[in-house]
Amino acid sequence: MTALEGRDVRPGITTGPITGSRKVHLEISDPSSARVLRVPQRRVELSDGTHVDLYDTSGPYTDPDVPIDPARELPPIRRDWIAERKPIGGAVTQVAYAKAGTITPEMRFAAAREGVDPELVREEIAAGRAVLPASRCHPESEPMVIGSRFLVKVNANIGNSAVTSSVAEEVEKMVWATRWGADTVMDLSTGRRIHETREWILRNSPVPIGTVPIYEALEKAGGDPAKLSWELYRDTVIEQAEQGVDYMTVHAGVLLRYVPLTARRVTGIVSRGGSIMAAWCLAHHRENFLYTHFAELCEILRSYDVTFSLGDGLRPGSIADANDEAQFAELRTLGELTAIARAHDVQVMIEGPGHVPMHKIEENVALARELCDGAPFYTLGPLATDVAPGYDHITSAIGAAQIAWHGTAMLCYVTPKEHLGLPDRDDVKTGVITYKLAAHAADLAKGHPRAQEWDDALSKARFEFRWQDQFHLALDPDTARGYHDQTLPAEPAKTA
Amino acid sequence: MTALEGRDVRPGITTGPITGSRKVHLEISDPSSARVLRVPQRRVELSDGTHVDLYDTSGPYTDPDVPIDPARELPPIRRDWIAERKPIGGAVTQVAYAKAGTITPEMRFAAAREGVDPELVREEIAAGRAVLPASRCHPESEPMVIGSRFLVKVNANIGNSAVTSSVAEEVEKMVWATRWGADTVMDLSTGRRIHETREWILRNSPVPIGTVPIYEALEKAGGDPAKLSWELYRDTVIEQAEQGVDYMTVHAGVLLRYVPLTARRVTGIVSRGGSIMAAWCLAHHRENFLYTHFAELCEILRSYDVTFSLGDGLRPGSIADANDEAQFAELRTLGELTAIARAHDVQVMIEGPGHVPMHKIEENVALARELCDGAPFYTLGPLATDVAPGYDHITSAIGAAQIAWHGTAMLCYVTPKEHLGLPDRDDVKTGVITYKLAAHAADLAKGHPRAQEWDDALSKARFEFRWQDQFHLALDPDTARGYHDQTLPAEPAKTA
Repeated sequence: MTALEGRDVRPGITTGPITGSRKVHLEISDPSSARVLRVPQRRVELSDGTHVDLYDTSGPYTDPDVPIDPARELPPIRRDWIAERKPIGGAVTQVAYAKAGTITPEMRFAAAREGVDPELVREEIAAGRAVLPASRCHPESEPMVIGSRFLVKVNANIGNSAVTSSVAEEVEKMVWATRWGADTVMDLSTGRRIHETREWILRNSPVPIGTVPIYEALEKAGGDPAKLSWELYRDTVIEQAEQGVDYMTVHAGVLLRYVPLTARRVTGIVSRGGSIMAAWCLAHHRENFLYTHFAELCEILRSYDVTFSLGDGLRPGSIADANDEAQFAELRTLGELTAIARAHDVQVMIEGPGHVPMHKIEENVALARELCDGAPFYTLGPLATDVAPGYDHITSAIGAAQIAWHGTAMLCYVTPKEHLGLPDRDDVKTGVITYKLAAHAADLAKGHPRAQEWDDALSKARFEFRWQDQFHLALDPDTARGYHDQTLPAEPAKTA
Repeated sequence: MTALEGRDVRPGITTGPITGSRKVHLEISDPSSARVLRVPQRRVELSDGTHVDLYDTSGPYTDPDVPIDPARELPPIRRDWIAERKPIGGAVTQVAYAKAGTITPEMRFAAAREGVDPELVREEIAAGRAVLPASRCHPESEPMVIGSRFLVKVNANIGNSAVTSSVAEEVEKMVWATRWGADTVMDLSTGRRIHETREWILRNSPVPIGTVPIYEALEKAGGDPAKLSWELYRDTVIEQAEQGVDYMTVHAGVLLRYVPLTARRVTGIVSRGGSIMAAWCLAHHRENFLYTHFAELCEILRSYDVTFSLGDGLRPGSIADANDEAQFAELRTLGELTAIARAHDVQVMIEGPGHVPMHKIEENVALARELCDGAPFYTLGPLATDVAPGYDHITSAIGAAQIAWHGTAMLCYVTPKEHLGLPDRDDVKTGVITYKLAAHAADLAKGHPRAQEWDDALSKARFEFRWQDQFHLALDPDTARGYHDQTLPAEPAKTA
């Protein structure tokens, strides 16, 4: 691919193994393609001669055997699989194959990463309870599955803005986020060079990439929501799909009649996409064009196998507004749209809040499951309180761990800078690690078969004073070791 | 008091208001003492002309009208109340007065801080469902109440060790911890100068101070658990009670027959006090002297109104060991001891774990409530996963918020250095703020009448772009402002 050549971007990329780990590959035979799938794992060798293999999202960047040059795309591991596959009923989507009883190489690959039966992956995708976001135009991505029967996934948002950050920084943020465990990355760039930034990110990304196309459409409309149109939006979606975006947030549930329901809220509409669509609806006094053209959108997404992430444009922006009529009215509409997307054999997940006190969290998952027929739920936190700006990675991890335990399939991270500023590299790492630990706490509570092995290995190392093993098994070995080295291993070493 | 004079300690103490707040005092008439009680609040004046009053644990240090000199004790606000009160049935404890129908000045003071009826405080203490830890020998403390009907409280552990930290640093850590919201402080000092460190902390502390007397007793026994004795322990308890310690952790539930139950655990016995008592029991093959002498201990604590914190010496030290037979066997014994303490009119709270996966958290609270007849539960976290050393303030805040929602009355904080090293000043702040937000999330979920006002005020300020108000209402105004100032207030200012 030559799209990256001749540009003025030369990102500095973090490469090399995570401290104490090395990349290994499980080799899995795939009957459907007659190929051997090489499934990455992060192996931690322990001083007692055993080892623990952990789920690995970091791609070739942590593999010393793969030369890295950001100006060339990553090895397109899925290219041949995609090329060889025939449409089923006109569809080339994972859900179409799943419904037809076919286990694709992607499903087998994802199942091996999870340590589950490939048939379970196929069944869950066929039923719409899981998605495998893997665009036909993003062959570099390592397949993964999102659903409540699987490990809880974490998304990291990155993206430049009009005021800060360069393309190079965004590519490095993507690599950095996946190094620490981000399962998907959303590119929320605004401002200039959106297309170019996205191209760099996609060609270098081992994980699925999501976007919110209305952001770029708004740039093309000069920043005025009233000047948006279905045609402008459609062309933007096609442009992004051609590049290889794996999933797209679409705020098709923000209906004209729901907007007044937000009038008495403490914090109105806080979703950027929701605000844009509400402004368009009010300016024209017409129904949301994403809703009225939803079937056409399904046709487009189907041809690339782009997954819908149906946005919650009316999500609460504060504890006071949680679980209100505006939020749940939109959720009912998302349920209606889910049925339409599924009828088109397009994969769907459902976005959720936001800001929710603990006693109102479970209702969000239960209602989403009921109204959207079990489609994977994908939530932003939620923050369990609003009083701690500067610590919202924590206020939201409290909510995220609980909502994931109750069945949310993917968590969108929140960084310490939430509500205050743009995250830098350290914030991205803090956000990802915080969300990985919340997701893992949920995996434990849900009884995922492989989750507790990890805790047990680390606890055993701790009890036996095998410090190196404890560091190497940590989500963040460098921070654990650094904190230890700041003081002598006195009493805290012996008690817990 | 002259105990602090002529020493070589001159702590540097953080004083002055929290950014954007000022100290105000509610003036409350107390009929029982015919006095006016001055109850501190942290007032945040907002730019729209309104204000929010928040619970204030910081004592005179944030009051510019009170001169601070750490070599003199704080104003002994309770001295006259204590002196004037007559014993009831030989007891001078808050629970004895509460059972007799008397609302003490301490109860009225604590009720005003909470914004609840003083009669509720009396009832809950009388029923043993709340404690008001306020030793007769610590007149400097500002009364507060711990119980599931009240705001969730946070304890911060401090303490020097043989290897690091000076007396001056520990006093400043206490002031620093209460500045950010610690409701009580435990002095876990080991090594040299334990008595002197504790004296400095007590005379300068506006919050109740807890200790684990077995630590000091072990120092006196030359560090050998086998050389401990009831007499040595008793004398240590009396020494500490005379100084004014408000509550003491006592590991009286670690029975000889329970020790073998820990043999197959992944992480054995991790509580320091539990290990010491288990070692003593095994060395002598005799029953725990804290258990066999428990009634005598009650007599001592009663005469000072020291509150029991019945320690969970067999708490799990890993996810693998949560909710096991050893843990719950000890809890049953703590229930038996609770009844004995109450028969002596001594206040009691119950300590809990530790390391517990989310799906096993609620059982801990429910069982403690049942076995210990509703005594306030006081837990360390719990950590919801073991895989994130370096981030255990977060892994444990996830568990702490949930266990507090289910009824835990006080949370012992965990800092980022847990399992790795000794917390410094920054770690203490991070631990306290993290636990305050977890406690507040639980207050919201429990529907405490004053909890949501705070969130609503901050959310409204956020929505209206009143940045200063948002910072001033934050748990940590300085960090919120600092993060904001690192980047321009671009998009994140407008979305949530």
